[in-house]
Amino acid sequence: MIAKAWDLRVTEGLPCFFVVGDVGAIRAVWDGPVEVIDEPTAALRVFDHALPCLQIADAGDVVPGLPTLDGARLAFQSLEAATGLVRAESASALVTAPVSKAQLAQVGFTHPGQTEFVAERCGVGRDNIVMMLAGPSLRVVPLTIHVPFAAVPQALTAALIRSRALATVRGLKRLFGIENPRLAMAGLNPHAGENGLLGDEEVTLIEPVLAQLREDGIDITGPHAADALFSPRARATYDAALCCYHDQALIPIKTLHFDDGVNMTLGLPIVRTSPDHGTAFGIAGTGHAHPGAMIAAIKMARDAEINRRAWADPV
Amino acid sequence: MIAKAWDLRVTEGLPCFFVVGDVGAIRAVWDGPVEVIDEPTAALRVFDHALPCLQIADAGDVVPGLPTLDGARLAFQSLEAATGLVRAESASALVTAPVSKAQLAQVGFTHPGQTEFVAERCGVGRDNIVMMLAGPSLRVVPLTIHVPFAAVPQALTAALIRSRALATVRGLKRLFGIENPRLAMAGLNPHAGENGLLGDEEVTLIEPVLAQLREDGIDITGPHAADALFSPRARATYDAALCCYHDQALIPIKTLHFDDGVNMTLGLPIVRTSPDHGTAFGIAGTGHAHPGAMIAAIKMARDAEINRRAWADPV
Repeated sequence: MIAKAWDLRVTEGLPCFFVVGDVGAIRAVWDGPVEVIDEPTAALRVFDHALPCLQIADAGDVVPGLPTLDGARLAFQSLEAATGLVRAESASALVTAPVSKAQLAQVGFTHPGQTEFVAERCGVGRDNIVMMLAGPSLRVVPLTIHVPFAAVPQALTAALIRSRALATVRGLKRLFGIENPRLAMAGLNPHAGENGLLGDEEVTLIEPVLAQLREDGIDITGPHAADALFSPRARATYDAALCCYHDQALIPIKTLHFDDGVNMTLGLPIVRTSPDHGTAFGIAGTGHAHPGAMIAAIKMARDAEINRRAWADPV
Repeated sequence: MIAKAWDLRVTEGLPCFFVVGDVGAIRAVWDGPVEVIDEPTAALRVFDHALPCLQIADAGDVVPGLPTLDGARLAFQSLEAATGLVRAESASALVTAPVSKAQLAQVGFTHPGQTEFVAERCGVGRDNIVMMLAGPSLRVVPLTIHVPFAAVPQALTAALIRSRALATVRGLKRLFGIENPRLAMAGLNPHAGENGLLGDEEVTLIEPVLAQLREDGIDITGPHAADALFSPRARATYDAALCCYHDQALIPIKTLHFDDGVNMTLGLPIVRTSPDHGTAFGIAGTGHAHPGAMIAAIKMARDAEINRRAWADPV
């Protein structure tokens, strides 16, 4: 996908980017030009005629689609190196590709995912980062993520809703350049509970938190019936939807933006995006992978970094 | 919306239909031609130059958007009359418009909704009917409907999944003319539980039911990660998706087909459809209501009745 994105760099208007990893892993699946670079600025010289690759380690013999421990070690070291480069401002933003978590766990990677690893390296607590999924017509924030369905009502607390809402507002201002972000919050129950008839979390939990947020000047509507919140007309009324659970956020974004959804981490001092899909080992090396989400992740990282600098250093 | 649908009868290629209700209620919101008919076949003479209306009762002074008890009585009597006409084969299919349930409850309507009323009049038990929501690119069946979020895991039983799956297959054969219906079942938990890591209902409940259904010859896949089940490529692999709860089904259908989603009741001896939206009293009489779903409901009722007859009476 990275190579396909490079191939489309002109038509897609992509900024200069480079791979942090192993040139052999790219050559195993791609016949185009790759050039090893020994430091980030060299990418600027290389990018218009070849895909620049900062060589981290040799992953050994690469069989596309077959995860190995050598590959996992490479992924781990590459993530560490890339995060460090962006922290040190040797690169402008971090775009991570999907990884095999099962393999990573076997080589000493103890974090639940790349997001938590990056947060730790940036000195930010896990509770202060927010996962936002963004496509051209919708941005969603799942308030609970990898929680079993039955545990969601317990996991959804007033403190969680409040802190995520505030972090989302900050992220929309800093990374998306939206001066007065408008949030919309989905209810937990069908029809947002119909005034307690179909569940009372809206009345007992969500409405009081939203009322307090409004008092504090946050533009947030809801709780809305979740089923009506993602129609074209409804989407035009907010900049991001806060959702109570994984599928409430992920169903609409993947239904609308399966091939160009981006995962953006809010709350970090650096910009980090990721295509919103998995490893898809089953089609690795076949040429069938769709680079749309990777391209969208690169563009969103560029735009977010421009906005972040303008926010941090206003003229 | 009914009048707007009649206005578009030629461009939309709509079959002959007539209103069962009050001509005064239509005239209160529409300046076009309406003609009272005294029995259903008269609609065939009238339809090309006026909207035919079988007069049931006078709803009194109608203020658009203001529900009244007279209006509720009219809605109740109209539903009863229309159901009777279709049962008696004096009309081919029933299309119901949205009603105010709160008002209906005050005039002796004791059913939870129109669907249950129609089922009872058809001599079918509530447990044997299935609500399907259908748009041009997606059909979904919510297995639980008006159940609070926290009560869904208890409400989702093996018997429910099995009976709804079988009823859906029958409905797709009879009403949609699909010879070998393909079903896809969504998991309850994020990522369909990731083999029990994020919830175990997939392993303990859903997988065994699906295995049994497959043994019985039903083409059903899953449990699938719900977030990936509604992408264009995924939708092409099934004729209907079985969903564990209200919003899992309603979010994708309303995200994709907000203006042309149809509610079709499976399991009845007659065809009954309904536009998939509410009363929207707030815009009644303003001319802003979108007739897309009503038009889609009329077309789907026509197609379903043609399929039903072909199935009941093969050449």
